Amino acid sequence: MTDLFLTGIGQLTTNTGPPIADAVLVVDSGVVTFAGRAGDAPDQAGRKRVDCGGNAVLPGFVDSHTHLVFAGDRSAEFARRLAGATYQEIAEEGGGILSTVAATRSSGEEELFALTAARARRMLSAGTTTIEIKSGYGLDVGSEAMLLRVARRVGEELPITVKTTFLGAHAVPREFGDDRTGYVDHVVKEMLPGVAPLADYCDVFVEEGVFSVEEARRIFATAASFGLGARVHAEQFSHSGGAALAAEIGAVSADHLDQATPEDANALARAGVVTVMVPGASFTLRSPQAPAVMLADAGCTIALATDCNPGTSYYEAMGPVISLAVVEMGLGVEQAITAATLGGALALGFEDRGWLGPGARADLVVLHAPTTAHIPYRPGSNLVGATYVAGAPVG
Amino acid sequence: MTDLFLTGIGQLTTNTGPPIADAVLVVDSGVVTFAGRAGDAPDQAGRKRVDCGGNAVLPGFVDSHTHLVFAGDRSAEFARRLAGATYQEIAEEGGGILSTVAATRSSGEEELFALTAARARRMLSAGTTTIEIKSGYGLDVGSEAMLLRVARRVGEELPITVKTTFLGAHAVPREFGDDRTGYVDHVVKEMLPGVAPLADYCDVFVEEGVFSVEEARRIFATAASFGLGARVHAEQFSHSGGAALAAEIGAVSADHLDQATPEDANALARAGVVTVMVPGASFTLRSPQAPAVMLADAGCTIALATDCNPGTSYYEAMGPVISLAVVEMGLGVEQAITAATLGGALALGFEDRGWLGPGARADLVVLHAPTTAHIPYRPGSNLVGATYVAGAPVG
Repeated sequence: MTDLFLTGIGQLTTNTGPPIADAVLVVDSGVVTFAGRAGDAPDQAGRKRVDCGGNAVLPGFVDSHTHLVFAGDRSAEFARRLAGATYQEIAEEGGGILSTVAATRSSGEEELFALTAARARRMLSAGTTTIEIKSGYGLDVGSEAMLLRVARRVGEELPITVKTTFLGAHAVPREFGDDRTGYVDHVVKEMLPGVAPLADYCDVFVEEGVFSVEEARRIFATAASFGLGARVHAEQFSHSGGAALAAEIGAVSADHLDQATPEDANALARAGVVTVMVPGASFTLRSPQAPAVMLADAGCTIALATDCNPGTSYYEAMGPVISLAVVEMGLGVEQAITAATLGGALALGFEDRGWLGPGARADLVVLHAPTTAHIPYRPGSNLVGATYVAGAPVG
Repeated sequence: MTDLFLTGIGQLTTNTGPPIADAVLVVDSGVVTFAGRAGDAPDQAGRKRVDCGGNAVLPGFVDSHTHLVFAGDRSAEFARRLAGATYQEIAEEGGGILSTVAATRSSGEEELFALTAARARRMLSAGTTTIEIKSGYGLDVGSEAMLLRVARRVGEELPITVKTTFLGAHAVPREFGDDRTGYVDHVVKEMLPGVAPLADYCDVFVEEGVFSVEEARRIFATAASFGLGARVHAEQFSHSGGAALAAEIGAVSADHLDQATPEDANALARAGVVTVMVPGASFTLRSPQAPAVMLADAGCTIALATDCNPGTSYYEAMGPVISLAVVEMGLGVEQAITAATLGGALALGFEDRGWLGPGARADLVVLHAPTTAHIPYRPGSNLVGATYVAGAPVG
């Protein structure tokens, strides 16, 4: 870990105060020791000088909602859905999530790792330094364990931090037919005990026709007994009560929230549940964007994530997600940048990142642009010039 | 120019028939000599073999509407507009186009070339091999000539084909105050004679409060006397008659068309005017997308373009534009890909590109994906693996 002296920062986003113009950032042993105006900076001493040339510096993106471990190709289904088939129709015809489950189960663990690591490398090159990865395309003990092992291995072999989430309750696998209760029993009695050591969190897809609030409450209670915090797929297509449940059980995050109400917002804010929004999914599905401004105004901590998955949101980079948040959700630029960095970190329980100040881990991005406003302003361009993880350049 | 033998093409988009699976493409002296199924291909002979590894190959993108030559930074204005200020309000306050005019006029020609060439290089790296570039940020004879020289120099120094368009009638410059008629006189009597040798086309921004149909008709008549074909900024914010004018005068293209009616579509189709749509601008401005499906169904040749400009659509890559066309305009994947390649070529009067078959110029893209459906399916990712211009690899 080199000690760094970053100068010529046109705009420094610290997330501890307003952006700073003409700034310097000092990193010692992978940790920020100074972040402020050039005039107040310490001596360069023995640190490696990096001239940022007037470009903006911000914390590395924290992508707090991804389904990154999968095999198969659903690009044709994407075209089909846009031609009129609904998510539910595709699912009922045996496509959708279950087609990814089939492709993923029949994939070897090495192949699955290669696919997942390639995605994580593209994320790193787009400035993402910490990610959450959910299982949910295995749906049996062995396959779910394989997905979670692959996810953890990505964090071990690549310079990206990974938190893992068990999402056995993503869909009911074909072998259970209509027996949803039987599958929930299986999740609680067989899967959770088997995979809990590989997971940091447990998630349930609470949605009409998928899993009910009652089923989710049961799964989360068992998960808690194994030490897993809760994340909830809530209020995506219908208002199903997932947000209220997240507040009730003190989930770490409630995600999606397209159909969330002001009552949900108040409950989530009171309970300190981070609201994770995934505008790429709503864009891809042509469904309404989550009420991000309403949630923020109600006092919720908001986060933005890619929801990277093969069915409804195959986004890997955070830049286009920030564009959607600013243009379609109406978030301010700084608000969206904070949601994509500090918000994501809080959604994953990290206190050491998502901000840049003394004591923060030096996960950071140097843009090819003078301000973060360029990220939403230039939606088709990857403006990430350099990414550092714990002070070391990557990519 | 190396002779090429591209094998292992998972999907070949020719635009002369349906996509071909398991295809081979042969290039001799920069021109395609075979495009078809592997089983029908000639011998490799002395050609350089390139294994495409199952990835898709398609014609290079042709971006037929850009305002690529500009200086200054309008990212803050972007944020301001999303916070509620209208395009007209910003213009009336002296921002908008006129702030770019001020920054561009005061820029040196070398600096302007460097800025423009950097944009063109990013376009090439995203698979665009032919572009149209408009002037319109000079608004006096000397400055407009400078912009057009810079545009032509990009085509001379970079491996990208450039067609230039004189857009003196983009806005009324400050020095003319309210004297729009005086400025139109100036465009007709001073600017066109001065800059015509540097331009392939003439364009007019026909819009309520900008230039009227009558003013445009006069400008286009003079431009025609200098041998310049017409392109029309038509029906973007209001229905102002630009499309009917384009049909009446046999313009090469009518562009934007957000407010176009079925009558416009029929007139444009009958007159053979290519309809160029720029979904990035409508996305950025939160205005309705052009009725692309209606225009196509009426028999118009449709094209997609970035409209790359600092005010309303700072897109450089065509991939995100194709995403918007598929997701927000409802175009089919193949229809959108054809519009972004062959449609663009037709909008610029090229017969030798935008398609891949014997006789076509070998401007082509090899994706990092097995089908073109991945382009709209993965909106945040640049899936361009390699770009060839006249058979030579670039970038």
